[in-house]
Amino acid sequence: MGSGAQAERMPLSSFRVVLVSPLYGGNVGSACRAMSNMGVSDLTLVAPGALDWGEAEKMACHAGGILAARRECATLEKAVADCVAVAGTTARRGLYRQHARTPRELAPDLAALSERGPVALVFGREDRGLLNGEVACCTHLAQIPTHAGYPSLNLAQAVLLFCYELFLAQGSFVPVQEKSDLAPAGLRERAADLWRQLLLDIGFMEPEKADHMMAGVRRIAARGALTTDDVKILLGIARQADWARRQGRVEAGHKRR
Amino acid sequence: MGSGAQAERMPLSSFRVVLVSPLYGGNVGSACRAMSNMGVSDLTLVAPGALDWGEAEKMACHAGGILAARRECATLEKAVADCVAVAGTTARRGLYRQHARTPRELAPDLAALSERGPVALVFGREDRGLLNGEVACCTHLAQIPTHAGYPSLNLAQAVLLFCYELFLAQGSFVPVQEKSDLAPAGLRERAADLWRQLLLDIGFMEPEKADHMMAGVRRIAARGALTTDDVKILLGIARQADWARRQGRVEAGHKRR
Repeated sequence: MGSGAQAERMPLSSFRVVLVSPLYGGNVGSACRAMSNMGVSDLTLVAPGALDWGEAEKMACHAGGILAARRECATLEKAVADCVAVAGTTARRGLYRQHARTPRELAPDLAALSERGPVALVFGREDRGLLNGEVACCTHLAQIPTHAGYPSLNLAQAVLLFCYELFLAQGSFVPVQEKSDLAPAGLRERAADLWRQLLLDIGFMEPEKADHMMAGVRRIAARGALTTDDVKILLGIARQADWARRQGRVEAGHKRR
Repeated sequence: MGSGAQAERMPLSSFRVVLVSPLYGGNVGSACRAMSNMGVSDLTLVAPGALDWGEAEKMACHAGGILAARRECATLEKAVADCVAVAGTTARRGLYRQHARTPRELAPDLAALSERGPVALVFGREDRGLLNGEVACCTHLAQIPTHAGYPSLNLAQAVLLFCYELFLAQGSFVPVQEKSDLAPAGLRERAADLWRQLLLDIGFMEPEKADHMMAGVRRIAARGALTTDDVKILLGIARQADWARRQGRVEAGHKRR
């Protein structure tokens, strides 16, 4: 998966997820889906046991291609032999793990390293994590932040969080952009003037209290950063309310006749 | 769950996860575990269908308490009636969703709001997400960053990522701290001097090339930020190698006799 058409489309094509002796097929499948969601496609299993592959395919959902293309290796050393960096994950703290950093801290370094060769993200067994000998193979060690009351993440959830941090660090995500720009002050003032006149006309406030009342109305409108479209809606409401008020007077006048 | 002993221990006790009509018990259970991992304990289900509760309990793992304490409501309006902010999630883009922001962008605002009252995080159905009428109930709208090739996250994975961003924004996580401080320059220089002498003594380099060779050795040691413990290991190796070299000479001398 290191080259070819699919890898070129994947933003994190230099990253490899390595699962060491996973116990549950469902977790392997869920990890595939999480990888695909974050643009990682290279999966290697180290000495997997007797997994439920049907469950794995079910949980992989539309990421079955990653599951099908997986490599299997007998040892962690073989799985990462070509990698220029090997980032292990640990939930435990201890003598050999106190240099661990969070995925968010490691992400920029790992992203830079991934431009120079394959980078492995290594996850241990569901029940025991990585053994000390496996941690020793790692150039980087990551601890995913969790609440101390229940620090043990599901395997696929750990894969997701690490890949998510790398995906964001890699910077290819384009957030939604609003089509309307933020409203300029001049437009906001026009809306304020129109509302002031309307609120006087409908008798919401007395002229001598208008400044005080309008301070409250302006405050409401200033709680958020309004776009031009937002302010145009406010202008439209004021104009329409004024029209309806005049119509009402006309109709009332007609009725009175 | 808004008060009491357990809530006080939970860092995100003012947040409520609301799942609208979830289809799969396994996802509800996995969401409970993810919530617990990130310090959220308040779960409300809106109009859940016929769920596999056994699967839910299995996937909740040690977070079965959250599952058992869940509330169920007939409508989203009822589920969030007491909330001061309601953050919906969407994977789709569209006319009514273009003001969506990422959970990372929203997290500081939501954390601040959660100090003034309950804040809901609302997740839609596995197959269709939130409907436009449900989006209209939300004061905030979030889109979780994903690779465009497969943007649809598993429900529990989406819950995890949103809660993770809030957990980090809330700032209660204490990363691992190395016991040893970074080495001061003076200690690094002592180690460099000892290694220089050792590398001369063992014939690794000629005196006239010592400066050039030591530039390479210093570069290796400067690739990472070494701690005092790291440099003490380097000092110890140099001292012991020197001792072994002298012993070897003595033994060789003995043998020669």
